Amino acid sequence: MEKLMKTTYEKLRSELLDSCVPFWLENAVDEVHGGILNCVDRFGKVYSEDKSVWMQGRAGWMFSYLYNNIEKNPRYLEFAKSCIDFATNHCIDSDGRMFFTVTRDGKPLRKRRYWFSETFYIIANAEYYMATGDEGYLDTARRYFDFVYGMYLDPATDPYKITPKSYAETRNTKALANPMIMLNVSSVMRDADKENFDKYDGIITGLIADIKCFYKSEYHAMFENINAEDNSVILDSAPCRVINPGHDIECAWFLLDEAIKRGDRELADFASLVFDEAFERGWDKEYGGITYFKDVLGLPVEAYEHDMKLWWPHNEAAISSLMLYQYTKNKKYKRIFKQVLAYSFTHFSDREYGEWFGYLRRDGKPTEPPCKGHTYKGPFHVMRMLAKCVLMLENEKGEN
Amino acid sequence: MEKLMKTTYEKLRSELLDSCVPFWLENAVDEVHGGILNCVDRFGKVYSEDKSVWMQGRAGWMFSYLYNNIEKNPRYLEFAKSCIDFATNHCIDSDGRMFFTVTRDGKPLRKRRYWFSETFYIIANAEYYMATGDEGYLDTARRYFDFVYGMYLDPATDPYKITPKSYAETRNTKALANPMIMLNVSSVMRDADKENFDKYDGIITGLIADIKCFYKSEYHAMFENINAEDNSVILDSAPCRVINPGHDIECAWFLLDEAIKRGDRELADFASLVFDEAFERGWDKEYGGITYFKDVLGLPVEAYEHDMKLWWPHNEAAISSLMLYQYTKNKKYKRIFKQVLAYSFTHFSDREYGEWFGYLRRDGKPTEPPCKGHTYKGPFHVMRMLAKCVLMLENEKGEN
Repeated sequence: MEKLMKTTYEKLRSELLDSCVPFWLENAVDEVHGGILNCVDRFGKVYSEDKSVWMQGRAGWMFSYLYNNIEKNPRYLEFAKSCIDFATNHCIDSDGRMFFTVTRDGKPLRKRRYWFSETFYIIANAEYYMATGDEGYLDTARRYFDFVYGMYLDPATDPYKITPKSYAETRNTKALANPMIMLNVSSVMRDADKENFDKYDGIITGLIADIKCFYKSEYHAMFENINAEDNSVILDSAPCRVINPGHDIECAWFLLDEAIKRGDRELADFASLVFDEAFERGWDKEYGGITYFKDVLGLPVEAYEHDMKLWWPHNEAAISSLMLYQYTKNKKYKRIFKQVLAYSFTHFSDREYGEWFGYLRRDGKPTEPPCKGHTYKGPFHVMRMLAKCVLMLENEKGEN
Repeated sequence: MEKLMKTTYEKLRSELLDSCVPFWLENAVDEVHGGILNCVDRFGKVYSEDKSVWMQGRAGWMFSYLYNNIEKNPRYLEFAKSCIDFATNHCIDSDGRMFFTVTRDGKPLRKRRYWFSETFYIIANAEYYMATGDEGYLDTARRYFDFVYGMYLDPATDPYKITPKSYAETRNTKALANPMIMLNVSSVMRDADKENFDKYDGIITGLIADIKCFYKSEYHAMFENINAEDNSVILDSAPCRVINPGHDIECAWFLLDEAIKRGDRELADFASLVFDEAFERGWDKEYGGITYFKDVLGLPVEAYEHDMKLWWPHNEAAISSLMLYQYTKNKKYKRIFKQVLAYSFTHFSDREYGEWFGYLRRDGKPTEPPCKGHTYKGPFHVMRMLAKCVLMLENEKGEN
């Protein structure tokens, strides 16, 4: 491994094991009720006891993944189990659907129409099974996978009969988020549930085709929402023109990872195109960093936080650019990898108190008072990036 | 009127009639389908054809109010009528509840649980009746007032049986927004529906009592959400600790206006206390301007746009501080009035293309590309402030 990459490897490994992991293990473990207390301020203080169900699954997956791939530390498994078991015991409604937030002791606060609580629960159970061989967790993962994939294919199978959010007879849209998350979940399931490899592999083939429908070459963009009936774009409505560069950059590495596994050069080329256009559109040429939302026509974006810098697109960009560099050997991607890490370590990383800030204003300063954990932020994107990049760089080392 | 106030009076009047009014009349009138196209960019270009139902009512009220109080311009009435009639013809569901957004030609896009579309529709009909004497509009206003006030008193009377947002058996909260908007609506109705003066006056007495429940002297704060069962605060949950200084500042002038009408000195003192504490908490000592959200304990706020500067709290602060100055003669409020206007004219006002920017980053620069109209911003807060301050300053003139 060349010297610059070796320095980076050490920096990322230390960020993971000396800053992020201890931040969560020392501050966010609920010793009383189990699971993770995800709302944590800069200094590690819990500022809200409401628990995110997404975060129980994400932490369960992340700490199992660390155990499986980085370090066989029993504390990782213990925490992962606590999060998964808290979700199993407190976060599932009588219809099988999961809640979105619960109180510290596990009473339901909100349940949402989207099945993302379930997808993170699936990968947590699958990864924990890979760490322990405990078949009960694999069974749960399989059962929830079939349940969620069923709702993905046919929303009418959803037992939660929530009032529709919008009038499909006026405008029937579908969201990129759904096939994207299903691709990630199916990929984890294929690793865990080896005897059903072909099932998940076939599903992934279909999901890749579904994702490609959101890409419109004439706009050089992956849309977040398209017409569900004919996959067309709806240009006269601002919400339908939104581009989420971080989401597309994440999608790029989901696709590239699959392209590499399949030896599918065309898919890899598509992934690199999605990355190139999203990074070009998203990178803020004035202040640096990746902008949260853009309008495909350059018009105003309705979400008024649109020019803030969120931590996770920077995590996805680091994974994508390093993976692209290793696959293509194109030095452009190494430059981008360095550029994204330089911005992130200057603005997001907080070595003084551990972990990364979640939310920066456009100028790169954290909103105040800053937070490290949130209903949507926990031990997931930052640590996933650090772990995946450490593993990719170890491979590089092996090659030299 | 002293010279400084005279200059301000002329500046505000010109901002209203030479910048804001033409901006909307020239850019946002839907000549094809009627009503207002509320999503307008900096230059006046419509960037999204989706129509906000709130904005049909708000524009209907605002232009009727201008006609009634500032200038008998028939174009104002014509536009107000177009917005109200578009709402009547296209924005009401079969159960009587109104939609939240519709397409340009009036097909439903979204309907929400909250009855704010209805409240703006009520004040539009009432104000238009005062301009024209057309009893049909008063009848509509009366009918919708009774409908909405019924839902305020007893949510079970709501015909829209939408799935509950949260689990009341776990945490049952109520929101300050509801009695606040009802106070404003009742006040307009009392002006319009003179034969039922006592009815609205009695309702207002109850609403003032309801609003006072949200004020907690030990925290020097008006809470946005409190426990619906015993009016207590819920401190271990971040969403329940949120303070919205702009909202409290708006509430202060709703209350003060009522205190002046009633000659209620104690209520006026309460209104000034609410203003003082909200302004102190909300004003950004580093960058200037009023911060969108604060946590009552100074902890992180979950809404990550919390330290942005939105236009409307500055409008409410100008009305409140001028009204407080005229009532108390305390020079502190004149200083605040000048301070708020100085910030606003430097950062929000856009004399080059008209109207005000809606959304500034903490440092006072507009998000880019900037917008002037939005699902939540139209010809309402800025113009209401300009008109009300012009009228208050005219009174001042009369006194000298």
